[in-house]
Amino acid sequence: MRIEIICTGDEVLTGKTVNTNYSHMARRLREVGLDVTWGTTIGDDRASLLEAFRLAAGRAEAVIVNGGLGPTVDDLSQEVAAEATGVDLVLDEGWLERIQAFYTARGRVMPENNRKQAMLPDGAELIDNPVGTACGFAVDLGAARLFFTPGVPREARRMLDEEVIPRLLALSGTQVAVRLKRFHSFGLGESRVDVMLGGVEALAPSGEVKLGFQAHYPQLETKLFASGTDEDELAARLAPVEAAVRERLGAYLLAEDADTLEGTLLERLTSAGSTLAVAECGTHGAVGGRLVAADPRGTVFQRGALAATVPMLARALGADDAAALGDQEAVVRLADSVRTTSGTTYGLAVLVAPRGSAAEGWIHIAVARPGDPPVERSSCIVGGPERVRVGGIEMGLDCLRRILTGLSVDDPIDFEKQRG
Amino acid sequence: MRIEIICTGDEVLTGKTVNTNYSHMARRLREVGLDVTWGTTIGDDRASLLEAFRLAAGRAEAVIVNGGLGPTVDDLSQEVAAEATGVDLVLDEGWLERIQAFYTARGRVMPENNRKQAMLPDGAELIDNPVGTACGFAVDLGAARLFFTPGVPREARRMLDEEVIPRLLALSGTQVAVRLKRFHSFGLGESRVDVMLGGVEALAPSGEVKLGFQAHYPQLETKLFASGTDEDELAARLAPVEAAVRERLGAYLLAEDADTLEGTLLERLTSAGSTLAVAECGTHGAVGGRLVAADPRGTVFQRGALAATVPMLARALGADDAAALGDQEAVVRLADSVRTTSGTTYGLAVLVAPRGSAAEGWIHIAVARPGDPPVERSSCIVGGPERVRVGGIEMGLDCLRRILTGLSVDDPIDFEKQRG
Repeated sequence: MRIEIICTGDEVLTGKTVNTNYSHMARRLREVGLDVTWGTTIGDDRASLLEAFRLAAGRAEAVIVNGGLGPTVDDLSQEVAAEATGVDLVLDEGWLERIQAFYTARGRVMPENNRKQAMLPDGAELIDNPVGTACGFAVDLGAARLFFTPGVPREARRMLDEEVIPRLLALSGTQVAVRLKRFHSFGLGESRVDVMLGGVEALAPSGEVKLGFQAHYPQLETKLFASGTDEDELAARLAPVEAAVRERLGAYLLAEDADTLEGTLLERLTSAGSTLAVAECGTHGAVGGRLVAADPRGTVFQRGALAATVPMLARALGADDAAALGDQEAVVRLADSVRTTSGTTYGLAVLVAPRGSAAEGWIHIAVARPGDPPVERSSCIVGGPERVRVGGIEMGLDCLRRILTGLSVDDPIDFEKQRG
Repeated sequence: MRIEIICTGDEVLTGKTVNTNYSHMARRLREVGLDVTWGTTIGDDRASLLEAFRLAAGRAEAVIVNGGLGPTVDDLSQEVAAEATGVDLVLDEGWLERIQAFYTARGRVMPENNRKQAMLPDGAELIDNPVGTACGFAVDLGAARLFFTPGVPREARRMLDEEVIPRLLALSGTQVAVRLKRFHSFGLGESRVDVMLGGVEALAPSGEVKLGFQAHYPQLETKLFASGTDEDELAARLAPVEAAVRERLGAYLLAEDADTLEGTLLERLTSAGSTLAVAECGTHGAVGGRLVAADPRGTVFQRGALAATVPMLARALGADDAAALGDQEAVVRLADSVRTTSGTTYGLAVLVAPRGSAAEGWIHIAVARPGDPPVERSSCIVGGPERVRVGGIEMGLDCLRRILTGLSVDDPIDFEKQRG
């Protein structure tokens, strides 16, 4: 089935707003096995809207129109939809009551111009918006079905998932049960994982499983997708494939689905009753920043220390002697002193030093722990300063994950220079 | 002049890549007085490309095509441009030499498939790419001029500014000198600034000055734009308007053009020979993170301390007594102790506490300084936790700017609850 997306509004047309609604919608559709074939961006302009609706309806079987459902005069989607389909706008009493109730619940009176949001092309199918005053709707234009959705991202995303996608799946005659499984890894590039997972889709006992990737440097997301008619059948179909992905990604696998590296880390530390302090340099404070964002009450993450240089960081931690050491020795000393002075179970120190060539940089990591000697890792990451820094932040957190899971921290990663 | 943008490539069509090339191009064109009237997104598909070129050429006088100039088989822009204009592809010997030289300079041999990047539609105008192997080109299709640009953002941006925009300005018959002046403020919403700057454009002695805004919460960017034939005339035209904007934004003005709040701060501290340490809580470490990113050598920024809670932060700074204080008293104590223990000229402490209603949160700020009592500011910011946090980070840095510039820290801001 050919599906098009039309994004409307002067803000997106002029580039003032980056069009994340488009990328979100296209990605979500692909995740359920539907493909977008054409995207159009136009302003709040009657002639452009009319032409865009007609062109898209002439090419596709389904069109998602985003934006233009607001209460102001430059919101033209309902009007132009009525004009394109040759019908009048009529008041939807039920939706008007919903808008009024929306305002009443917030202790306000509905402004008169919101009435416009309940005016729909005669005969249109109303599409519910549980979180806003702009209802969606659907009309036929030629051989195409047009679905109108609000421009507010939160409203558009919810309407897409709950209302539009089920209708598109029904329209396409495809199965309505879908399953998307996601794996997050660190240290492996897309082409290597593609080879590592070669033939994995064929492990499904029956039916099709699609394998896909999305790189979010330095993480890689591996996706498995299947659609069918029965949830249980889908689960059974995916199970052996999921198991094989888990086994092949092995120690590189950080988390699955909505879980994150920080989440995995904090869960392990929490269940062991452990605490953590971090000292960092060259990372823009992101190691501690990410941990504190994931652990806002400080159950596990007790303290972050940040400075521009090793001597400054050493001084802040009362370990001035570290200033005279080489980078790797210094980072071990800093991990120890941030642990000792904070009274935590673990101390993590990360130093990113993009010295030498602009095309690479060194990362030094140490984890101080109770009872055993500190764990160390160093690496030369290839790429510009931003790539080195982001890679170093991730590697610091990943080293700790590996230690807590009883894994080696020495597995090579694809982003580093081969070690001698 | 009607200008359209066509973005090509499966990565953008499927939403795998967010289309920032489109928003960048549209915004840059607007900054030089040109408007995009239609945007199209299509995949690496011959039929779609051909149809998109013809439709755009039928509607507009100029079309920018982005992407599809790479060396691989799915890069189709040259081929389809030749097909659409009814000519053959011919080898551009000069560009082939450029590609070979590009590889030679990197100690590599040009792979054979890069030869494809030097094949252009017969009669096309070559457009230089100083930073890559994909040259741009321009052809006429019907009454429109089509400009082909590479998909790599860095290459596309440079080619747009240096090559495409001058050609578009010449084509549109508009003046070729343009001037864009930008002002960055914190604490004022777009509608308030719109009122504060009412009539400011009319202060130009002659010619037109356009006023525009772009909100990057919590900052607002105010833009003045003028185009003409003569740089000196433009400078003279804008001068009184710029002066009026500066005066009316007053203490809220942080920086101009490419300068930033951090840059302004660091410059003031550096020229006074002062140093700074930061203690923060509830900010995800972003106050120190932003400063260390802007001052990677630590000339001014000596140390950042981060924790999830006030007692943890107090402990890290050896100021355990702060744990028993109220938030505002605690933040004063923390600013003092981060300054004292770090031996810096200033100590800045920022505490963001999104307690109580989810729709607002409290911010507490203190700056410890030599000789004088500490400066304090607290504020209740309206909005969800993310908005409160981002507002608090900015307000912390802005308080320090105001102190260093001899301004009051007490001016009300539009994002806070009215104070009693």
